Amino acid sequence: MTAMPAPADIPAPALDLATPYLVVDRDVLDRNIATMAKAAQERDLALRPHAKTHKCLEIAQRQIDLGAVGLTVATVGEAETFRKVGFDDLFIAYPLWASGSRGTRLRALAEQTALRVGIDSVEGARMLARAMRGTDTEVLIEIDSGHHRTGVLPEDADEVALAAARAGLRVAGVFTFPGHGYGPGRRQQAGADEADSLARAADVLRDAGLTTTVRSGGSTPTAAMADATALSEIRPGVYVFNDAQQVELGSCDWPDVALTAVATVVSRSGRRAILDAGSKVLGADQPAWATGGGRLPDHPEALVTALSEHHATVDFPDGACPPRLGELVRVAPNHVCTAVNLVDELIVVAGGSEVDRWRVAARGANG
Amino acid sequence: MTAMPAPADIPAPALDLATPYLVVDRDVLDRNIATMAKAAQERDLALRPHAKTHKCLEIAQRQIDLGAVGLTVATVGEAETFRKVGFDDLFIAYPLWASGSRGTRLRALAEQTALRVGIDSVEGARMLARAMRGTDTEVLIEIDSGHHRTGVLPEDADEVALAAARAGLRVAGVFTFPGHGYGPGRRQQAGADEADSLARAADVLRDAGLTTTVRSGGSTPTAAMADATALSEIRPGVYVFNDAQQVELGSCDWPDVALTAVATVVSRSGRRAILDAGSKVLGADQPAWATGGGRLPDHPEALVTALSEHHATVDFPDGACPPRLGELVRVAPNHVCTAVNLVDELIVVAGGSEVDRWRVAARGANG
Repeated sequence: MTAMPAPADIPAPALDLATPYLVVDRDVLDRNIATMAKAAQERDLALRPHAKTHKCLEIAQRQIDLGAVGLTVATVGEAETFRKVGFDDLFIAYPLWASGSRGTRLRALAEQTALRVGIDSVEGARMLARAMRGTDTEVLIEIDSGHHRTGVLPEDADEVALAAARAGLRVAGVFTFPGHGYGPGRRQQAGADEADSLARAADVLRDAGLTTTVRSGGSTPTAAMADATALSEIRPGVYVFNDAQQVELGSCDWPDVALTAVATVVSRSGRRAILDAGSKVLGADQPAWATGGGRLPDHPEALVTALSEHHATVDFPDGACPPRLGELVRVAPNHVCTAVNLVDELIVVAGGSEVDRWRVAARGANG
Repeated sequence: MTAMPAPADIPAPALDLATPYLVVDRDVLDRNIATMAKAAQERDLALRPHAKTHKCLEIAQRQIDLGAVGLTVATVGEAETFRKVGFDDLFIAYPLWASGSRGTRLRALAEQTALRVGIDSVEGARMLARAMRGTDTEVLIEIDSGHHRTGVLPEDADEVALAAARAGLRVAGVFTFPGHGYGPGRRQQAGADEADSLARAADVLRDAGLTTTVRSGGSTPTAAMADATALSEIRPGVYVFNDAQQVELGSCDWPDVALTAVATVVSRSGRRAILDAGSKVLGADQPAWATGGGRLPDHPEALVTALSEHHATVDFPDGACPPRLGELVRVAPNHVCTAVNLVDELIVVAGGSEVDRWRVAARGANG
């Protein structure tokens, strides 16, 4: 991968904006959206992209325009943001605890839009049912397919589903997030686990007398493995932009990376350059297997060996030619979802010129 | 440390806000501010706290009210935010590259307020001098005291300083950030390095014929070691809130932690609890020596073994009593500076009741 050439089609824009800022190449974004839409359609899978990645109305609209059946979100706040401007088919893929004001807000949402909510416990199902009584809310049971975060094992799906049904909720099916695919060489196994777990959980619900139709999975690394024998729907998020993590996992290549931080070289010594893009614009995500705190698409030989709030320390190997003081450099964040959540707007470029600015409408909508 | 009792004086507020949210205990905050102010005064050190930690006008005012000589900031945007409401003595502790609009904005700032800016290269000094011609801007030469990020070695301080002076800038002194003190058992050495490097750099400038007065250092871990024989000023930031990292480094104790994220237990299995506070409210900072992705002050025996955007995976040891589904739990972020930058406001409590909300005025002011 270190020999990967820099992509010729994402020139660093020389905008007179104060670095660091996040820039989106519209053509690469559109290509990523179209490619995933086509792949889902060809495999007869509904595509319900996760909007937590971009939090942008303009990008959500592009996804819907190319056939996405609706949006996935992580929080009630995100759902409210997208609902307010007319997105009307939303899945909150999270086992919400629907007490107090969260219950009230969820109910208001359900009265305005087609709403699905995740559950993974009997108690959570009952709490949700109390909040949503009389609405048409559907629930999906979250299945643990190997990531061991939220979700129940496939064989325990019936307990939660039956409790939900008894409490008056409509059980539409099951969902999972195969997050254990985020590691080198783990995508294939995670994709297989996802398919197997959803199929088994759907069987368990059928045996319990529940007729369900939705088997929803799909992360960006495993989306390519999804097929309609086990899944009915996929929910990738990161694919619209991609990031250093996806490149290092092999889910995409540098020319597929649509979002980068533009930074200035503020300090130099030896083969080290310090950039003004730190964790407050890139995010601090760094899994143990990552090569550093992000990557430089135009300098694939360089490593981001340290990241502080306003500094990226970039080390170049012997023989490499580090950028000069004052030079603009692009950095692909490790995890684009957390980077986007750090800015108020994305600078949209095409052919190296600014063509638009998109507001990160659901930035900070954690609650 | 795992035997540390939970602090009795920071009750988790049972506000009907959608979790996760960040809550500040005003009494603990005020005590932290007063303690640092007193320590600086007693040791005859100017205190210029770093406002990048809190980005809040209300907190900056409390620091000034107790004798801080001015504020430290990291970016032009932060300086503009604080200048706009009347803070009039600002140090941008960063080797800014003052080209284009950044130069114009810096110049406007210098015309409105006492302004100091960091430099660490001849080229950066010349660029800054061009932007600031005719203003009264002071510069401090950044010294690398062992962190190996920005800054020049003490013996090279004269080259940058003389170039700055020749270009028309007023060289007021030297500064350093002893960031290599962020590691277990490394505070004492980092404090010694800081003192030694600043003293040596000041000598180098004196030998070069430059009369300077400012020797500015001080991180939260090393502030306790600073004294007026080597330093004239300290710039700690984190101390107002503290965080899990500072507790694990031994810079403070649980009762000194003023800011926590309030989260809901959304999922449970075995001795594992999943909270709805993830990296989008806690930040993803996790140095190699940290025990996890944050700490639970009320459950010091528990470890945050994984963090995703909207989930903290918390594992409890045998015999511990994990919180129930739906229970509110407080989480101290690893690094409070990046957590604060993720929210629009801080919920201020005293005695467990909400007493105020403070806007994170400089949130996202990266450029």
